Amino acid sequence: MTNQIDMTRYLHSFVEGMISSGVSQAVISPGSRSTPLALLLHRQEKIETFVEVDERSAAFFALGLSKASNKPVALLCTSGTAAANYYPAICEAKASHVPLIILTTDRPHELRQVGAPQSMDQLQLFQNHVKLFVEMAIPEGTKEMQDYAYWQGMRSTDTASQMPKGPVHLNFPLREPLLPDLSSSLKTKRQTEIIAGKPQLTEKQLIQCINALQGKKGVLVVGGSHTPKEARLFVELAEALNWPIISDPLTNITSCGLDSSLIMSCADLFIQEVTMIHRPEVVVRFGMLPISKNTMFWLRSLEKTETIIYFVDETGEWQDQLKQTQVAIQVQEQPFLQAVKENITVKTSGSWTAQWIKWQKITEQVLEELAEMNQLNETSASLLVHKQMMADGQLFVSNSNAIRFIDRFAAVENTSYHLFGNRGINGIDGIVSTALGMCATNPKRQNILLIGDLALYHDMNGLLLAQRYHLPLTIILLNNNGGGIFSFLSQRELEKEDFEPIFGTPIDLDFSLVAKLYGAEYTKAETLEQLDLLLEQTKTEPKFQLIEIIGDREKNVRLQEQIMNVLKEKLEQDR
Amino acid sequence: MTNQIDMTRYLHSFVEGMISSGVSQAVISPGSRSTPLALLLHRQEKIETFVEVDERSAAFFALGLSKASNKPVALLCTSGTAAANYYPAICEAKASHVPLIILTTDRPHELRQVGAPQSMDQLQLFQNHVKLFVEMAIPEGTKEMQDYAYWQGMRSTDTASQMPKGPVHLNFPLREPLLPDLSSSLKTKRQTEIIAGKPQLTEKQLIQCINALQGKKGVLVVGGSHTPKEARLFVELAEALNWPIISDPLTNITSCGLDSSLIMSCADLFIQEVTMIHRPEVVVRFGMLPISKNTMFWLRSLEKTETIIYFVDETGEWQDQLKQTQVAIQVQEQPFLQAVKENITVKTSGSWTAQWIKWQKITEQVLEELAEMNQLNETSASLLVHKQMMADGQLFVSNSNAIRFIDRFAAVENTSYHLFGNRGINGIDGIVSTALGMCATNPKRQNILLIGDLALYHDMNGLLLAQRYHLPLTIILLNNNGGGIFSFLSQRELEKEDFEPIFGTPIDLDFSLVAKLYGAEYTKAETLEQLDLLLEQTKTEPKFQLIEIIGDREKNVRLQEQIMNVLKEKLEQDR
Repeated sequence: MTNQIDMTRYLHSFVEGMISSGVSQAVISPGSRSTPLALLLHRQEKIETFVEVDERSAAFFALGLSKASNKPVALLCTSGTAAANYYPAICEAKASHVPLIILTTDRPHELRQVGAPQSMDQLQLFQNHVKLFVEMAIPEGTKEMQDYAYWQGMRSTDTASQMPKGPVHLNFPLREPLLPDLSSSLKTKRQTEIIAGKPQLTEKQLIQCINALQGKKGVLVVGGSHTPKEARLFVELAEALNWPIISDPLTNITSCGLDSSLIMSCADLFIQEVTMIHRPEVVVRFGMLPISKNTMFWLRSLEKTETIIYFVDETGEWQDQLKQTQVAIQVQEQPFLQAVKENITVKTSGSWTAQWIKWQKITEQVLEELAEMNQLNETSASLLVHKQMMADGQLFVSNSNAIRFIDRFAAVENTSYHLFGNRGINGIDGIVSTALGMCATNPKRQNILLIGDLALYHDMNGLLLAQRYHLPLTIILLNNNGGGIFSFLSQRELEKEDFEPIFGTPIDLDFSLVAKLYGAEYTKAETLEQLDLLLEQTKTEPKFQLIEIIGDREKNVRLQEQIMNVLKEKLEQDR
Repeated sequence: MTNQIDMTRYLHSFVEGMISSGVSQAVISPGSRSTPLALLLHRQEKIETFVEVDERSAAFFALGLSKASNKPVALLCTSGTAAANYYPAICEAKASHVPLIILTTDRPHELRQVGAPQSMDQLQLFQNHVKLFVEMAIPEGTKEMQDYAYWQGMRSTDTASQMPKGPVHLNFPLREPLLPDLSSSLKTKRQTEIIAGKPQLTEKQLIQCINALQGKKGVLVVGGSHTPKEARLFVELAEALNWPIISDPLTNITSCGLDSSLIMSCADLFIQEVTMIHRPEVVVRFGMLPISKNTMFWLRSLEKTETIIYFVDETGEWQDQLKQTQVAIQVQEQPFLQAVKENITVKTSGSWTAQWIKWQKITEQVLEELAEMNQLNETSASLLVHKQMMADGQLFVSNSNAIRFIDRFAAVENTSYHLFGNRGINGIDGIVSTALGMCATNPKRQNILLIGDLALYHDMNGLLLAQRYHLPLTIILLNNNGGGIFSFLSQRELEKEDFEPIFGTPIDLDFSLVAKLYGAEYTKAETLEQLDLLLEQTKTEPKFQLIEIIGDREKNVRLQEQIMNVLKEKLEQDR
């Protein structure tokens, strides 16, 4: 028997600790063992709570909330397999550096390993996919144990928020009775203030870096998730150096609002063609590799040359898949970018950069002139979404084909909007819920999700959140009835009887029924003009809707091949 | 670069090893890294393959296949979060002793911890929720490495199948190119034969046990999953001893086809009332505790008495939540039951047993006479399903309310059918897929799933399997629009503004649309007669259909209270 007042004070102290370190939102999944924490979070004015029955969707929703708000978000569930459903989102959060505070509730020690119902070993449940695991003490009401609970709430949230950010897991053994005593007055503790230093270079180190870079034939290569504001600094640095910049949609460089000719938004298409004739002296890489495989092959091809590779590694995690780093710079990215930009005195000569700009222009022209790009297909639809994003709009782009359409073909727009994705581990799971978490953070903005049919099916349960919380998300569904990505990979060489059941995997779902089931408006877009009009409306009338575009897996591949053939010819003419 | 022929031979040897230890089914989720294993499984004649995009549903489907076939089942997915989606089903398999062979594919060592896409640490991914984790070697084609792969396939499957059965995990690092060479001829290895001994007692130990039990005022208490055939041995033992037997639906004692008056199917309802007046000298427990909380309280009350508790612990895991075992018998259950039954020479006197039979009869009468039980509600519908099961039929009963309706109210029928549930950890996740796995094993039998609305929503994705593989499952949906179990727990004392959002959690889904989406026939049953007719049809026309019964969370509680009031009175009159 636990004293209800003691338990309540102890858990209240923990919640206060989380609040002190910046938690203001929590996603709760119903359950019995979690009752006291659920009620304390629900009653706590400083915390906004969401409820979702499917813990997998709940965790991805929390991931989306945290991505869009850049704040730690708490998750709460009951004991047993409930917690195991969090695992996919936790793995993604660890890989993409999102601070989640996972609270699982558990049987007390005397009910473990004895066959008690709905109990399993929850210690270290998420292995090394969390930054920290804490097995909490059984609640007690003493001053010391209240301080302990506050401290754990505060420091675990702070741990999640430190670079590299990521999920932490706290397991709470709770004894019956599980109802908290909400009638007693609960004190508010004085908050703890955190003043945190960040890694930065000395002036000497900085000057040394700048001298190694400026005036050289260089390329900036940027990957990983960035906000449009952060992205602008990359572009400003490129302008200061007069270097081309290669990135991907997640970096938000293409959507940061700076219409710079230095942004090589179509690098994926032309970079393999130029490998042989134009080598940089230096490449400076930031964060993960960009999505484009062709960019990766290009970088790999530089290994045989004298090109020096700099790697600005903000997390210190050495995430350099090519293992070609010659100089690793471990520093907080944004102040470093600012400092370098301000201290550059020599611009690289025009001819190096002019050639890159020319390739980008040729590629853009090829795309514009191709008739198929003016008809409705998955590629043109994705590009139209990119073009129709309004200032401060939020676009979530799914794996695995959707993000590649944008990466390959989207040109720079001078509207600044924020593009999101789950590119930590690139799963097709949890996309709908993550996008809804994004939408819930800024529901008054334009909110769009670009997604394929398999990913939408995988996380269909997430749609319940849209209905329950009236989240005005526009879902653009690219429906090619199956796993479109495999038609671009080596599996396409297989015979149809091997390919379709294992890779094609048509699911034959009528998505107008899915829309109806969850109360979304449904439209099947038949032409580009119609889609254009629908997207135009999202700017003034945000609502929960599903817009379906019927695609074709084989047509996607043929269009890509056609583009490459025309482009190759044009680039050769240019030589 | 891996030699494609070498990789193919290595992986083929592994698959042959699994087959040698009894794998004949595999559930595959599409992905790129898993391509060679997927194709080898797909092409292997001795293995039946199923494909499901949502790995969470795939794993629960495999769980259901294995439960119904009593054979090890393989699971295959690609790298990244895909594997994490298996976690809930793996936890349940570990707790409920189901042999699953989890095959995850992974980046090779040189692409780990370097930010390669769709990669994360998969070593020990499922912590101690698997019996065995093996990090496989990079494929090589030598005789030695082919033998190694065969050996690992054979022994890991055997490990999964040994008592206590459970899941094992093998992680395969694979290098590109990922296409196997299916043109080359693959040799079939001579299979390894396994002759395994099981724990059994010596004759002396056995006689000692029998002498301690026979003639005493005793009760058999049986929990855990058993087949109807296994269940009959429990009943036969009870008959030989002339002891009452308390169990739960999962034991299949109520549905084993033996209409014995010794089966206390309504013990949950009357046992608390009799605690004070009738104490056994011995209790013999088998496996887990039965579901009934009242039975647990009754067992706990015996601690103050001289009653001796025997615990037949087949797994040796000491799963005795009450920790009251005085004699632990570690032995294989079935041969032990048989041997005890055959050697009993003294029956317990009639008066002890007659009193138990009387209580059971009184309870059955109360239930029969209650008007509400003759109207359509969640309780009466559940009972009707139980009554309408045909010989060899398969019924899957969901957590958390559905199983309790059957446990409390179902009387013994003389038809032998097989009742299944996920009672390892009692989650509401994965129920639909597990039931479909059951159905896929014996699709020509009567196959019924009894489920609530939250559990159906949680695993709605599983319905795609029914559509794709034409699985004729009848789903009886008890729809009380939310978490009905909480209305029976202490949370019901909360104010409505706290209760409904966190525990009631109405989801307001139109399940006729769900049926339409996945191609199931839909009927809303309005009367018991109509439901009766529909259930009658399942005996001759198995088909994929959803039958909805509208329930009411508060009415469930009131009916339960009403029954208890009437019953209390009748039992008091009897004293």
